[in-house]
Amino acid sequence: MKVLIVFAHPEPASLSAALRDEAVAALKADGHAVQISDLYAMNWKTTVDKADFPAMAPDTRLKVAAQSSAAFAANALTDDVKAEQEKLRWADMLILQFPLWWYTMPAILKGWIDRVYAYGFAYGVGEHNDRYWGERFGEGTMAGKRAMLIVTAGGWAEHYSQRGVNGPIDDLLFPINHGVLYYPGYTVLPPFVSYRVDRLDETGFTRTAAALRERMQTLATTEPIAYRRQNGGDYVIPTLELKPDLEAAGTSGFALHLNPTV
Amino acid sequence: MKVLIVFAHPEPASLSAALRDEAVAALKADGHAVQISDLYAMNWKTTVDKADFPAMAPDTRLKVAAQSSAAFAANALTDDVKAEQEKLRWADMLILQFPLWWYTMPAILKGWIDRVYAYGFAYGVGEHNDRYWGERFGEGTMAGKRAMLIVTAGGWAEHYSQRGVNGPIDDLLFPINHGVLYYPGYTVLPPFVSYRVDRLDETGFTRTAAALRERMQTLATTEPIAYRRQNGGDYVIPTLELKPDLEAAGTSGFALHLNPTV
Repeated sequence: MKVLIVFAHPEPASLSAALRDEAVAALKADGHAVQISDLYAMNWKTTVDKADFPAMAPDTRLKVAAQSSAAFAANALTDDVKAEQEKLRWADMLILQFPLWWYTMPAILKGWIDRVYAYGFAYGVGEHNDRYWGERFGEGTMAGKRAMLIVTAGGWAEHYSQRGVNGPIDDLLFPINHGVLYYPGYTVLPPFVSYRVDRLDETGFTRTAAALRERMQTLATTEPIAYRRQNGGDYVIPTLELKPDLEAAGTSGFALHLNPTV
Repeated sequence: MKVLIVFAHPEPASLSAALRDEAVAALKADGHAVQISDLYAMNWKTTVDKADFPAMAPDTRLKVAAQSSAAFAANALTDDVKAEQEKLRWADMLILQFPLWWYTMPAILKGWIDRVYAYGFAYGVGEHNDRYWGERFGEGTMAGKRAMLIVTAGGWAEHYSQRGVNGPIDDLLFPINHGVLYYPGYTVLPPFVSYRVDRLDETGFTRTAAALRERMQTLATTEPIAYRRQNGGDYVIPTLELKPDLEAAGTSGFALHLNPTV
């Protein structure tokens, strides 16, 4: 398998980096090819702006989606963005690894998504009209590929549990798992989340690393999150609302978009 | 009232900027003082890294929370961060305005939070032990101040409705409303969200601008989102799980953290 790890931590000697190295070692031991986009080490440009669209006339008003579409179609995106898109095309498996900062990814990784996920590449794929709303949520450029998150959190697992004050971790990660990974077609595996990482001792690290290696060894067989496909008949087009008769009893919010029959 | 608007759009001629100007005009007409942090215009540094902690010895391992804590306590954060913290102290009302990119804020705004929300300022406030878990979620540095989001989205309102494929907008914004605004103590007003903004015509803009001005005229009286206070007796300490007998029937996920009696 070809695996791309997009890594977003500023400290090469961090716990996050140590876990990344454990993952890479496990993957290579199983014969997988691995590429790493270490965003801090690459000094990744984080913000979307006019410089992302070099072919754009300088006095043009920047409409991001329109410029992204034109630049992608003309192969006129910047080289750093094109290189990341090439890695995404190459990889069968995408891993985003990051510390949870303010309940989501660090800015540098969000900036990777904002810039690499071009119109025509990750969104705006396929026809969009009143009877068909594009290839997304289970279809798209990344269809057939797998993806997962590796996340480290300072808080306790209980704080992120079903009744925890932070909100359930699966709901906090839904905008990423569903909105960033499933959207362009990835099959999304459950995330690997470590808690209380600031207090992790040697024993805790050993246990966490072993669990992570085990996840790396089972990428091909791990059961994915059973999100509903947009174009699988479950949604009304074009309002894209789940058909009422498909709602599982007592389910609401993000959980509606899980297929209870899987 | 003193109002700070943190604005995150790269295009000065954008719809977002036009809405911001409407909001500012309405606020000033009512005699409020307004400051704007226009992050793109300020060329805001987006990523947390060692340069954020100038007093740190260069060969030290960067532990972000620890360095943030030390730098905040010693008044040794960078000038750009200190200036934003001063604006937050000044303002009675904080508005974050942004286009919804990949179901959350653009990287540049996330980087404003990652950097300005220092340990001791926005988190790590108050004692943390097994019987008291700090001043947060309803208490903290920003207690007594109000905050709200102004968000523009390309998709349809239906796509963000209770059954919409994107997930409900209130759930998508929960990590920001609850995790970023309520966390350091803000009283959080319902967001102002505009949909299908790429297709907004003159009539649509006029209607949207009028609704936004009305929200600006009612900031002091708008009923806030009734989040539960962490230290109000609703949560078990230190696991911070909602007490089971407080759960409203049929409620789960983020909605558990709303007080149904308000």
